[in-house]
Amino acid sequence: MPISRRIAAYQAGGSWIRKLFEEGARLANDGSGKPVYDFSIGNPDLEPPPEFKKALRTIVNDDTPGQHKYMANTGFEETRAAVAADLSKDHDLPFTPQNIVMTVGAGGAVNVTLKALIDPGEEVIVNAPYFVEYRFYIENHGATMVVAETKPDFNLDLDDIAAKITDRTRAVIITNPNNPTGVMYPQETLDGLGDLLREKSVGRDRPIFVIDDAPYRKLIYDSPKCTSSFNGYENTLVATSHSKDLGLPGERIGFLAVSPRIDGWERLTGATAFANRTLGFVNAPALMQRVVAQLQSVTIDLDWYRRKRDLLYNELTRMGYEVPFPGGAFYIFPKAPGGDDIAFIEKLKDNRVLVVPGTGFGRSGYFRISYCVTDDKIEGALPLFEAAIKNYS
Amino acid sequence: MPISRRIAAYQAGGSWIRKLFEEGARLANDGSGKPVYDFSIGNPDLEPPPEFKKALRTIVNDDTPGQHKYMANTGFEETRAAVAADLSKDHDLPFTPQNIVMTVGAGGAVNVTLKALIDPGEEVIVNAPYFVEYRFYIENHGATMVVAETKPDFNLDLDDIAAKITDRTRAVIITNPNNPTGVMYPQETLDGLGDLLREKSVGRDRPIFVIDDAPYRKLIYDSPKCTSSFNGYENTLVATSHSKDLGLPGERIGFLAVSPRIDGWERLTGATAFANRTLGFVNAPALMQRVVAQLQSVTIDLDWYRRKRDLLYNELTRMGYEVPFPGGAFYIFPKAPGGDDIAFIEKLKDNRVLVVPGTGFGRSGYFRISYCVTDDKIEGALPLFEAAIKNYS
Repeated sequence: MPISRRIAAYQAGGSWIRKLFEEGARLANDGSGKPVYDFSIGNPDLEPPPEFKKALRTIVNDDTPGQHKYMANTGFEETRAAVAADLSKDHDLPFTPQNIVMTVGAGGAVNVTLKALIDPGEEVIVNAPYFVEYRFYIENHGATMVVAETKPDFNLDLDDIAAKITDRTRAVIITNPNNPTGVMYPQETLDGLGDLLREKSVGRDRPIFVIDDAPYRKLIYDSPKCTSSFNGYENTLVATSHSKDLGLPGERIGFLAVSPRIDGWERLTGATAFANRTLGFVNAPALMQRVVAQLQSVTIDLDWYRRKRDLLYNELTRMGYEVPFPGGAFYIFPKAPGGDDIAFIEKLKDNRVLVVPGTGFGRSGYFRISYCVTDDKIEGALPLFEAAIKNYS
Repeated sequence: MPISRRIAAYQAGGSWIRKLFEEGARLANDGSGKPVYDFSIGNPDLEPPPEFKKALRTIVNDDTPGQHKYMANTGFEETRAAVAADLSKDHDLPFTPQNIVMTVGAGGAVNVTLKALIDPGEEVIVNAPYFVEYRFYIENHGATMVVAETKPDFNLDLDDIAAKITDRTRAVIITNPNNPTGVMYPQETLDGLGDLLREKSVGRDRPIFVIDDAPYRKLIYDSPKCTSSFNGYENTLVATSHSKDLGLPGERIGFLAVSPRIDGWERLTGATAFANRTLGFVNAPALMQRVVAQLQSVTIDLDWYRRKRDLLYNELTRMGYEVPFPGGAFYIFPKAPGGDDIAFIEKLKDNRVLVVPGTGFGRSGYFRISYCVTDDKIEGALPLFEAAIKNYS
């Protein structure tokens, strides 16, 4: 076996999303000609907004030399200024270009943040159900993942977070709005998290940080904007991307925003830029940096998503599913009828409907529907969801 | 201090290239109006070839939907097929798309490779002088960097590599052609390295691998193509990018090629794809993948570089500098007159000429000139190099 034992062990553990992805490919090519209803992956079917194409075409027709060269590891000043202006407006805080590091997606931003913050042996708290990559991201940098549970409505459980904090705790990762639940945390919860971490940081040489992984921050359906982790707690970094809000997941364009309220934020931004370089990212892709600089006030068609969210939430609730209300992102996380999520998703799979069991996110008994698909997929699957709850409850 | 102790220690060590970059910016804005001759950084002044602009414009004017979505973590099949075809021709080996993982530059490819190969506590050998990022890359994955010295002409010293191999050695990183020396290794050396590692791998459960970091593989000035690490040794992975051969360093488009001669290469490619995902890269930027798929047989204007290489090599040699012959890349690595590279580069700096001391690459007594600059910079600096050797020898 040529590979490392560490990776071999990771791969032996398998990934539900990967298994379902392969199952989807197998079903699509099984010769039956029947449709597959694949709700397993967050890869939007929606095209980027027209403003994106316009900006991209303008930029590639500009013959100014030097556009594809290296820039500072933090990214183009012009892009960081546009991001800072948008964040300042959203959070009423004085972001400057020096608070922003452009990154290779939100995944890059989270890794850069962890590298800058963590010394080996420290701990990072995540909140179940959680994005499956966090374990890998945290262990990449020699830290240990510690899991806090959430409340029945999937809001953060501050008491459980408090119980999981040790003298090795370095950061708490939150995802707002959440993957896999679609839940947006209330501002009081984020304020409460700030109070808790402020209190728990007293007497430490370095505070406990919040890392808010927020690629869905602009996909909010019932209020004008997302609640603010920056406003809840001073020691906050937001890792995000334009994968979802501009529909560009393949382009790997994101950023890390370091709160101007962090004591010593300049030093922290410097460390994240250093991590961006030395982890091998070097910088976010140059061309896409120039494109998104023009699109900070643009968001993909929210109605496209809201319509699907409403349809799924209303119909599943009517059928008898218990569904925590999803205020954002493009996920719904219903309770699995019968309580056994693995058995239930296998049953759906028999009917060519692919969803991810909650077990894959560290919370059994639920399943995730990713609804960034065309309407006909949802409409075609609804009778199958209805048959499943009838036959299985 | 908000940052990790590990990063703080790295940053306290400083980087010569960064210091010189900052010095260059300071000199350029010192109000004197005098030119600065900055040979410190490998950021090409040469624009990408015209075929690049043509391909880019064609692609962004294509309205086929789904172009910016996620694809497999290995990259688009079409791009990997184009890369595999070019490599098969170059090395006379049967590369398939399954041997290729598209990456976020060569820096991404090296990190992905190390993550897939290394278990914590293992060792990776580099050859001094070496690219400064290797230490960070190796330590990112919990391994230790071990330095082998090279011969006086900067060819690999196989005896020293042999002496540095322990039962914890997992890989040897080479850079062919080399940064900082510009030296291309003879095929006999690569064959000899293969013989050595084949012999040293006997009785191990996993062989010692060669990781050939080859972003300059197409910048070769005296022969039609670069010597082949793939042909020298079966257990070889090549990490490369189009940063230099197409002039796209800011776009972060590269790839990793896994030799089809590796026993279990399919497993290794799978592990590197997994590492690409879990290190947070996810995939190489989608748009640039589609562009470079069309450009595998295109290279930036080699005459632009060859002319500068010849001018610098001939003139520096005439002045009395000892210069190992640079067959590729865009670096020249002369001996520092007087023997003290730090003192010598300070002297050049007083005359507004910026070069990097060999100490920054783990080999004192030399200095690196990066000649990916316009002719007038080289012509303007030549009298200053001549004055420096006269005054300092």
